[in-house]
Amino acid sequence: MNGIHEECGVFGVYGNNAGIAAQLTYYGLYALQHRGQEACGIVVNDDGVFASYKDIGLVNDVFSPERLEKLGKGTASVGHVRYGTTGNNDRANAQPIVVNHIKGSMALAHNGNLVNSFELRSELELQGSIFHTTSDTEVISYIITKERITSPSIEEAVNKAMNEIKGAYSLVIMSPSKLIAARDENGFRPLCFGKTDDGTYIVASETCALDAVGAEFIRDIKPGEIVVFDKNGVRSITDHCGKVKPSMCVFEYIYFARPDSVIDGCSVHTARTRAGAFLALEHPVQADVVIGVPDSGLDAAVGYSKQSGIPYEIGFIKNKYIGRTFIAPGQKSRENKVKIKLNPISDVVKGKRVVLIDDSIVRGTTSARIVKLLRDAGATEIHMRVSAPPFLNPCYYGTDIDSKENLIACKHSVEETAKIIGADSLGYLSVESAKKLAHGDEGTGYCTACFDGKYPGGIPQETRKNRFEKKISEK
Amino acid sequence: MNGIHEECGVFGVYGNNAGIAAQLTYYGLYALQHRGQEACGIVVNDDGVFASYKDIGLVNDVFSPERLEKLGKGTASVGHVRYGTTGNNDRANAQPIVVNHIKGSMALAHNGNLVNSFELRSELELQGSIFHTTSDTEVISYIITKERITSPSIEEAVNKAMNEIKGAYSLVIMSPSKLIAARDENGFRPLCFGKTDDGTYIVASETCALDAVGAEFIRDIKPGEIVVFDKNGVRSITDHCGKVKPSMCVFEYIYFARPDSVIDGCSVHTARTRAGAFLALEHPVQADVVIGVPDSGLDAAVGYSKQSGIPYEIGFIKNKYIGRTFIAPGQKSRENKVKIKLNPISDVVKGKRVVLIDDSIVRGTTSARIVKLLRDAGATEIHMRVSAPPFLNPCYYGTDIDSKENLIACKHSVEETAKIIGADSLGYLSVESAKKLAHGDEGTGYCTACFDGKYPGGIPQETRKNRFEKKISEK
Amino acid sequence: MNGIHEECGVFGVYGNNAGIAAQLTYYGLYALQHRGQEACGIVVNDDGVFASYKDIGLVNDVFSPERLEKLGKGTASVGHVRYGTTGNNDRANAQPIVVNHIKGSMALAHNGNLVNSFELRSELELQGSIFHTTSDTEVISYIITKERITSPSIEEAVNKAMNEIKGAYSLVIMSPSKLIAARDENGFRPLCFGKTDDGTYIVASETCALDAVGAEFIRDIKPGEIVVFDKNGVRSITDHCGKVKPSMCVFEYIYFARPDSVIDGCSVHTARTRAGAFLALEHPVQADVVIGVPDSGLDAAVGYSKQSGIPYEIGFIKNKYIGRTFIAPGQKSRENKVKIKLNPISDVVKGKRVVLIDDSIVRGTTSARIVKLLRDAGATEIHMRVSAPPFLNPCYYGTDIDSKENLIACKHSVEETAKIIGADSLGYLSVESAKKLAHGDEGTGYCTACFDGKYPGGIPQETRKNRFEKKISEK
Amino acid sequence: MNGIHEECGVFGVYGNNAGIAAQLTYYGLYALQHRGQEACGIVVNDDGVFASYKDIGLVNDVFSPERLEKLGKGTASVGHVRYGTTGNNDRANAQPIVVNHIKGSMALAHNGNLVNSFELRSELELQGSIFHTTSDTEVISYIITKERITSPSIEEAVNKAMNEIKGAYSLVIMSPSKLIAARDENGFRPLCFGKTDDGTYIVASETCALDAVGAEFIRDIKPGEIVVFDKNGVRSITDHCGKVKPSMCVFEYIYFARPDSVIDGCSVHTARTRAGAFLALEHPVQADVVIGVPDSGLDAAVGYSKQSGIPYEIGFIKNKYIGRTFIAPGQKSRENKVKIKLNPISDVVKGKRVVLIDDSIVRGTTSARIVKLLRDAGATEIHMRVSAPPFLNPCYYGTDIDSKENLIACKHSVEETAKIIGADSLGYLSVESAKKLAHGDEGTGYCTACFDGKYPGGIPQETRKNRFEKKISEK
Repeated sequence: MNGIHEECGVFGVYGNNAGIAAQLTYYGLYALQHRGQEACGIVVNDDGVFASYKDIGLVNDVFSPERLEKLGKGTASVGHVRYGTTGNNDRANAQPIVVNHIKGSMALAHNGNLVNSFELRSELELQGSIFHTTSDTEVISYIITKERITSPSIEEAVNKAMNEIKGAYSLVIMSPSKLIAARDENGFRPLCFGKTDDGTYIVASETCALDAVGAEFIRDIKPGEIVVFDKNGVRSITDHCGKVKPSMCVFEYIYFARPDSVIDGCSVHTARTRAGAFLALEHPVQADVVIGVPDSGLDAAVGYSKQSGIPYEIGFIKNKYIGRTFIAPGQKSRENKVKIKLNPISDVVKGKRVVLIDDSIVRGTTSARIVKLLRDAGATEIHMRVSAPPFLNPCYYGTDIDSKENLIACKHSVEETAKIIGADSLGYLSVESAKKLAHGDEGTGYCTACFDGKYPGGIPQETRKNRFEKKISEK
Repeated sequence: MNGIHEECGVFGVYGNNAGIAAQLTYYGLYALQHRGQEACGIVVNDDGVFASYKDIGLVNDVFSPERLEKLGKGTASVGHVRYGTTGNNDRANAQPIVVNHIKGSMALAHNGNLVNSFELRSELELQGSIFHTTSDTEVISYIITKERITSPSIEEAVNKAMNEIKGAYSLVIMSPSKLIAARDENGFRPLCFGKTDDGTYIVASETCALDAVGAEFIRDIKPGEIVVFDKNGVRSITDHCGKVKPSMCVFEYIYFARPDSVIDGCSVHTARTRAGAFLALEHPVQADVVIGVPDSGLDAAVGYSKQSGIPYEIGFIKNKYIGRTFIAPGQKSRENKVKIKLNPISDVVKGKRVVLIDDSIVRGTTSARIVKLLRDAGATEIHMRVSAPPFLNPCYYGTDIDSKENLIACKHSVEETAKIIGADSLGYLSVESAKKLAHGDEGTGYCTACFDGKYPGGIPQETRKNRFEKKISEK
Repeated sequence: MNGIHEECGVFGVYGNNAGIAAQLTYYGLYALQHRGQEACGIVVNDDGVFASYKDIGLVNDVFSPERLEKLGKGTASVGHVRYGTTGNNDRANAQPIVVNHIKGSMALAHNGNLVNSFELRSELELQGSIFHTTSDTEVISYIITKERITSPSIEEAVNKAMNEIKGAYSLVIMSPSKLIAARDENGFRPLCFGKTDDGTYIVASETCALDAVGAEFIRDIKPGEIVVFDKNGVRSITDHCGKVKPSMCVFEYIYFARPDSVIDGCSVHTARTRAGAFLALEHPVQADVVIGVPDSGLDAAVGYSKQSGIPYEIGFIKNKYIGRTFIAPGQKSRENKVKIKLNPISDVVKGKRVVLIDDSIVRGTTSARIVKLLRDAGATEIHMRVSAPPFLNPCYYGTDIDSKENLIACKHSVEETAKIIGADSLGYLSVESAKKLAHGDEGTGYCTACFDGKYPGGIPQETRKNRFEKKISEK
Repeated sequence: MNGIHEECGVFGVYGNNAGIAAQLTYYGLYALQHRGQEACGIVVNDDGVFASYKDIGLVNDVFSPERLEKLGKGTASVGHVRYGTTGNNDRANAQPIVVNHIKGSMALAHNGNLVNSFELRSELELQGSIFHTTSDTEVISYIITKERITSPSIEEAVNKAMNEIKGAYSLVIMSPSKLIAARDENGFRPLCFGKTDDGTYIVASETCALDAVGAEFIRDIKPGEIVVFDKNGVRSITDHCGKVKPSMCVFEYIYFARPDSVIDGCSVHTARTRAGAFLALEHPVQADVVIGVPDSGLDAAVGYSKQSGIPYEIGFIKNKYIGRTFIAPGQKSRENKVKIKLNPISDVVKGKRVVLIDDSIVRGTTSARIVKLLRDAGATEIHMRVSAPPFLNPCYYGTDIDSKENLIACKHSVEETAKIIGADSLGYLSVESAKKLAHGDEGTGYCTACFDGKYPGGIPQETRKNRFEKKISEK
């Protein structure tokens, strides 16, 4: 899917007596790479001394064996993967950020977006604060640091800071002697922790990262909760819990998270097959075969097939070698012909009525291309089913959605869209079903603002209009 | 699958008036990357002047935009992707090779292995020939060049050379004014050609590479056939056709080729689903779910599911970001725990009786690890089904199979193997069924030497024993 | 010379209507590369928007054509080259630093060392300030930013900040609309400005960087002076001028600066030839030939030759291809034999009494090796003359001198040193003469603390003892 | 100097029991880097097994520690540095070349140019030989290989091959058990050997490379001599010695060789100071100071100063950090102003009458720029003296001289040239003096063809005219 991007994945290690905290974080970030592919970083704590490295690029590119080795031994660490726009400042905006303050050093990794960072920043600048980056994360660092002056502990400073910062944040914070995980009151972004059998605590955005380092999942961090890992073990601060109704991003289930992760008690894969089943019920059709767009449409395709009884098949082969420096064909006229990235299997679709499952339609151009591939391969009918509702609104909680100008659902009805992309029929998942993906009728505590415009965490005062329009003007 | 490697993919372009032969080859090699990931190269023909570049690495790494640009315009070209052992000589052994001889320049790309290259080389050296590489390809170049002295044309030289070279070869040869495709009499390796709608001829190891450049498939090159592309169009030389019974490598269907390719009239995906169906018939079992090991076991899993009626599911998530420089966990003890590359989806297998489909078992260590992952994820029974017969013999026709010492099937019965890998039951595809994958009972013209030891193309006289044993000693 | 390092070079551009400020800075930094070879950076101002790039490495390595291109057009810019110890934080410590504050953005490049940065930093931290780096430069940024809140202009903020910061600093500061150059009251480090014939103002550590961009030298920035470049032209603020007696680092003449630079009215080359002449007067000797150690001993060798009448000759060839990744011979025993970096010309020294001129002796090991090379090449007598006095004290004003433990002059008399390095005689320049290098008897306003321990700018209170000893323990 | 390029440097090691032949070659090539900066390579012999690596780039760039390590241990080795035109085939043309032939492997490094390679190559191609490169070196390999079939030893094959190959060649050849050094009958290019104190034999183009590995110089290889290093020690074959009068390239003394080398008994530095002295006698002038263009004009400047009594001075500072990726200023108009690479020292030349010494004038553009720099710096008179005669003819023996169209001396008289470059007077070294540089009146055995058109080794029949004109048309 193009046009929608998660902004971050976070990871933390505490109490690794073997001293391989950096290595564990490396593997954890690999497992979280899908949450951010632009930049990554690791900060290691070796008895209070922090060593860090971060740069633009995939984990694989940024951390060579030598580079990882140089981070040295450590019992605790924090890691981050990031999605971000390209530009000169990018490397500066990479995380975790490390700051030195009155009580020592602090490393901080953040997934989410504040809605009041502009106000907080202005206030800090009025007091003479200087900023090296344009990220919310630096603002959070300042707020915590200011509170730290008068707080007896770092966790108390975080607790106080949470009164000030508004919006979406899943944080992993490392002090010289502690690791702290904190999640905003709405719980927009996932965050969980586990433990390896040698007693090392692991904090991660998703459980797949716990699996990657062989850690047993313990539980999700609750919305509003602060979990402190220190030499006395694990401790929870719940002052901010239960203040508001939780509203986790439903798109974590639909698209962002890895299918092998379990979030708030529900398997992502299972949520997606359920999306497929809902689609089969909401938009039934007579057809010969169900196929999914790899990789993100496959789970829902299996669900649609099971619910409908129409056989599941493998419809496309995705070229897995296309890397960062792939040279795209230049000539416009050629673009439709080339099947470099995705090639249909003719034998599967030729002469068949095909149900095609994808996880979303943003601008519609990619969908149109895929439908054409199938048509050229001999499919007689193509019924597109989308395992998400139509995108109609911007997200202020850490997802980068294309501008309204570009969202096809903002400009066209479902029927028009079907025509534009060349499908014989088109059906989206309903917002009601989307809310039931994880926990059926119980599961109403989700944010579906991008679909229905109801923002459970408020919206930025100053910048709301500007941000959205600026994005448009940049195209 | 570890331990089995294809050695090459070839690609050729002729008659591209737009002058973008290099670009077309670049896309073609991307589509053939699965056939060789160690090295690659492109030679471009601009009005008789050849420009070439080749190096160790994936297409994506070797060809930057600048590098591709430097190859310049050209109406014809030859490309190659290669699997090879690492070592100092690797770059020298990359293909295509370009040689200058009495009648001009010649570029040559080769997929396969000669069985008499040692004899041919010795003879040439006795006449004072010098060799820059250790590859068969240089031997073929010499033989063609020698014949060229007394032949009226390059194709006639190739035709004569085919009397001398024995074994497996799918060749693409470029002279200043022609492109020639040739396939050995047994047709061990695939080779086909097609045409784009601007009249450019494309030769490729597999049809997926034709798709990648938007070319219409015309037909496979026949075993023993030489196809000549020049200013007069396409011409076929069939002197070597029909001399022996064709015997294409059956493992092309089972593992090497891409599922979206069609070889000798049969879809690779369909052949694989058929393998799954045969497995269901030969080794039925009561179970709750069928899953495949990604990516190569998925097609057969769909086939097994359809034949058996047991539901297909997505059982594993493969980390698609693991690159070349991934740092493997050092400690032996950790290795089993980490699920970095492949993570099972617990919800799918927990409490279930699982049919697990993979395309082969070589040493058994990978299978044992995968079975354990499922067991840890809660599968109650694991029935492994392999969509290929057991490997028992070396290949002399272009496949690099692990040594006998390492092949688990050479040392253990099926029951023992099941025990070793931890499966509740194990079933291999029968050799008889393997021969029927592509064309049912008609399809008996296949090489299955690695399974049954019957070598349709002869074996190397001198080096047979040595080569095989040397490989062992190297481990 | 090993063991003594300058820490920085600074460069600034203002009012370049052609928009090539980045390019000019690139050339300027090339000319200043000798002042810092560990890291470099450029910040460009395009109508108030800053683009920046900095990294570890030489100018040549950090700025590729693409990288420079990406900085875009700009009418003003700031650049920096830096010497620094290697380590994880290095890239973070690269300059110029760019900060965002209440009144906009500010870029800052700094050459020198504060003596009260510890105190200033502690105070700032108490107010909740956070630090991303360990450099003095960030402290200076904070001080200026704090003053900026209540100041009508950036130059006024700088003027006030100069009341607080103590020690050595030559600064180039860029605001969205101005460029500011400031030099500490003692004028420890050089700083000058000039103008190109298209009216662009250039600020630089040395005049050689003005030459590199074709700028005409206007004048040195005076100790304590602030020079402001803005749309109204050039303006000088002299509130801090004349408060203390100037004391420029005499080692700028002896070693740091490039011979083709002119500092405070005196040619560096001429100062060095004068050093050679003083040596000839202070330590005359009967000899056949005078040679210098390339490159830094050559100027003084010419001066010694002229004063003494003993012929000047080229005694060594230095290998100019030795790069960063040169692999040093591993075996201790070989080290003396290899003449890879420096090879004597036998014909010049064989059978001769040689006067050997170098600019300094730090540990003595390099000198010993050079003397041995000459002895092996057949020199009958070797009289070493050093164009600087012996190093006896640490520098707190921006020079990184080896620790006392390592300084041979702290442990041995001149006679002992001669013996240790294997010279027949040894003579250092007197401190008195050092003070006369630039302006004869007039020129007494120099800092010679490293030779005589008289610190004209004070010393750090807290850290003095610690810093010096830490350095020792690190070895 | 632009426009004149040496083509190669060669290096060999034999009998290094410590197994560090690769390392020694690495240091040797560093010392020979000035002879070829485009490509380099090393082949190591470990008990008959050759490991090799070569690539485009400086020794420093091509050989990382890992790369050198991978070459492994070896008792013998061959190395090469190369100058060559850029292009796609460049890497293929890098040396040493390694070939496999009837009697095993052979590695070959070559400095020079054959005059009959076209004829030899045509003949070989008629016999079916194929060529991978366009270099003379591959031709030589073939000739030796062909002779090897009927020769009892590799040295005998080389001896016979020398009857066939004509022109300039200094060769280092490595067989599995021997190292062979051979020099053409005219001795156009230098070649010498020495021995380290652990008994390792070293062959090198120049003595500076012996110094670099701590080897004692033994003697030059004689023109026409073959020296064999094997387990029986050192053996000389002199069948080709004394057939023709030796004619070493005089430009080796004037420009190519390093000043610290000794060739055929004469120090290069001394030959150059002698050139300066001859210039002083042939073209005396009243002046205040003598300066040389760094680095190649410095030795002659010292010689001119001594002979004339006019004081020597350091006139320019050369920026030693300008690397391969330096971005040249784009605007034509700026080019003259920038003094990035070479900056005059004003104090030295202002108000002075200057004698300016350079080693050659090719096109005159560089000289004009340098003269202008001095004029701008305040020199009142500039008298240019060139320590070589004017270039008037192409070289067929391994030097790449600019085409006649570009040589200023082919188109203009000395007076005109002086005017063009802006000098007050101009004087070249006479051809007669050039012949006396090394050994006074004895030394008449030199090739001065580029100055006087007398070709002691013959000229290529077919290609002479073409090669020269092609070069012109390429511009």
